[in-house]
Amino acid sequence: MKNFLLMPDSFKGTMSSLTVCKIMEESIRKIYPESLVKSLPVADGGEGSVDAFLTALSGEKIYASCSGAYFEKITSFYGKLSDSRVVIEMASCAGLPLVEGKKDPKKTTTYGVGELALNAINNGVKEIVLALGGSCTNDLGAGFASALGVKFLDKDKKCFIPVGGTLSLVDDVDVSGVPDVVKKVKFTVMCDVDNPPYGKEGASYVFARQKGASDQDIIDLDEGVKHICSVIKNKLGIDLTNLPGGGAAGAMASGLVAFFGAELKMGIETVLDLVDFDQVVNKDTVIFTGEGKIDSQSVRGKVISGIAKRAKKHNLPVIVIVGGAEGDLSAIYDMGINSVFTINRLPEDFSVAKAKSETNLATTMENVLRLMRLD
Amino acid sequence: MKNFLLMPDSFKGTMSSLTVCKIMEESIRKIYPESLVKSLPVADGGEGSVDAFLTALSGEKIYASCSGAYFEKITSFYGKLSDSRVVIEMASCAGLPLVEGKKDPKKTTTYGVGELALNAINNGVKEIVLALGGSCTNDLGAGFASALGVKFLDKDKKCFIPVGGTLSLVDDVDVSGVPDVVKKVKFTVMCDVDNPPYGKEGASYVFARQKGASDQDIIDLDEGVKHICSVIKNKLGIDLTNLPGGGAAGAMASGLVAFFGAELKMGIETVLDLVDFDQVVNKDTVIFTGEGKIDSQSVRGKVISGIAKRAKKHNLPVIVIVGGAEGDLSAIYDMGINSVFTINRLPEDFSVAKAKSETNLATTMENVLRLMRLD
Repeated sequence: MKNFLLMPDSFKGTMSSLTVCKIMEESIRKIYPESLVKSLPVADGGEGSVDAFLTALSGEKIYASCSGAYFEKITSFYGKLSDSRVVIEMASCAGLPLVEGKKDPKKTTTYGVGELALNAINNGVKEIVLALGGSCTNDLGAGFASALGVKFLDKDKKCFIPVGGTLSLVDDVDVSGVPDVVKKVKFTVMCDVDNPPYGKEGASYVFARQKGASDQDIIDLDEGVKHICSVIKNKLGIDLTNLPGGGAAGAMASGLVAFFGAELKMGIETVLDLVDFDQVVNKDTVIFTGEGKIDSQSVRGKVISGIAKRAKKHNLPVIVIVGGAEGDLSAIYDMGINSVFTINRLPEDFSVAKAKSETNLATTMENVLRLMRLD
Repeated sequence: MKNFLLMPDSFKGTMSSLTVCKIMEESIRKIYPESLVKSLPVADGGEGSVDAFLTALSGEKIYASCSGAYFEKITSFYGKLSDSRVVIEMASCAGLPLVEGKKDPKKTTTYGVGELALNAINNGVKEIVLALGGSCTNDLGAGFASALGVKFLDKDKKCFIPVGGTLSLVDDVDVSGVPDVVKKVKFTVMCDVDNPPYGKEGASYVFARQKGASDQDIIDLDEGVKHICSVIKNKLGIDLTNLPGGGAAGAMASGLVAFFGAELKMGIETVLDLVDFDQVVNKDTVIFTGEGKIDSQSVRGKVISGIAKRAKKHNLPVIVIVGGAEGDLSAIYDMGINSVFTINRLPEDFSVAKAKSETNLATTMENVLRLMRLD
């Protein structure tokens, strides 16, 4: 019996991975009514990641009170998976859409993300996955760390919660107050960028503009991150300078590594481990994945390359369905991808085609499956 | 061993059927190096039909002097297939592109087409296929008939060669002068339209405008065709009034039926018979066809429906590759088509996508074949 595993990324701008899974599954039920289908929508680390994990693995969405990006009280949530690991998406309390119209990475905090983590820890959780996509902050996770007991002191030894604009005031950092229960938690950070915490390739220069920073802000923010990194180096002996991915989420990834020994991991690798990929497949599994657009250049950290790597170990076919495919695909085939199909049924501009994404995906899936049935 | 039969139509506006065959064949050699491939580009009845038949069946392109659409001397050609049947495309001497800038269906003639036929007959040919696409005439084939010995007389019993504008002057028609050698020839007409010779659905009303006719011209041309049909009915006892397809090529199809007992046949059926489809395939054959655009509405006389019908008899899979596919395809699947893939690799308007047709076709074929190799 055919056994299908669906692990699509979202099609940026048109369909969430959940929607893609749903459409793919319907097509399979139509063409292969007798098959087994498992849908594991891929969380991309941004908004919707918790829902994607809960769909893939089942569990509970837990709502909790915490601070928003401006320390205001809000109600946010995290996902408690059925195996009792927790997934927190920082976009749920420090996400860009939440500060629309008042974006300012000099002032926003990740404190609420820390409160969500603490809530989970107080409920006995031992492992937390942090999905860092879509942040509005540039505070190196100092807010998050504060919520979990790390103390940041200015040169008058006064304790404060640093934000992006006040990182340069940090003179000392004290981790002695972090409770044991927090120290024992395993933190995994979903992180698909290579950027170091500061410098021209760092968090501020590369990501702060979209969070509302001006040219001068960027220079100041970068100085602040650089400064606190030197404090961390002096006080904790941890050198974050060239940490690949340390620039993720306004350098929050760096703070998580420095204060909590977090592991930075490609998003898709995190997902594949969480969903226990190697146990889910068997020798008859055919894998469908996909994303908005594929090209031979940008494959690092991408969903399809991560899946291809795992599938190769099991010698399983991977079929890719995309909104667009550009350039020579031989590098993609070399990864172990069997074939790449695009959903465009007519030669139409994206502005027109966009509205037809769902039907186009369904028709394409149907024809791919009809061809597969030929054998 | 896989056995591929390629029978694509042209992709209107981008690729000839010959080009499509070439690209499909290259992709097959790449993915299935050990397979057998037979390319039978499908002639659509218009310009290039002779070349398509010669490619599919081999033979000789014979050049001959004849009259152009305005009775001027030109050199044209026909195809003598290896089995000694002849294919004439009327576009080669009475085609629209040849009269660009001087289109006038009141004045143009099919006389040259008749001369080509006579040339072939004088060389011993017994069977002629007439590809009628792309004509610039509206003379009911009176020119063609004149070249082969039919006499058209005005009311003063004066013999003349009628053109569209003078059909109404025909008072009598005399077929007694048609040589026996011509009478014995079997004429087959490739004809994909249903239109009768005259009336609102007839040749003049439906097709004459694109040949340069004005509103008044259309009325006059239609009157002329109606008039000569009544002469034919009175003199030869043949009623062309409701002949489906009799309106093809400025009603030339009607003249061919009336004067030479021609058989009107769907273009694709003609091709399938000529290429001896039933002999070419075996139980391992996989058929690829395609065209510019497919939709569930317009399937009559279409290449893919004709091929699907034949393939079904042999229970062979048909895979369709198109530039665009619109609407619900269930009617297409019901015909026996396995699957329909579109070549658009990006959501781009036709104006942009057009230039990439060849690479897009190659990439699509490659991925379809890669998927087929999975089994």
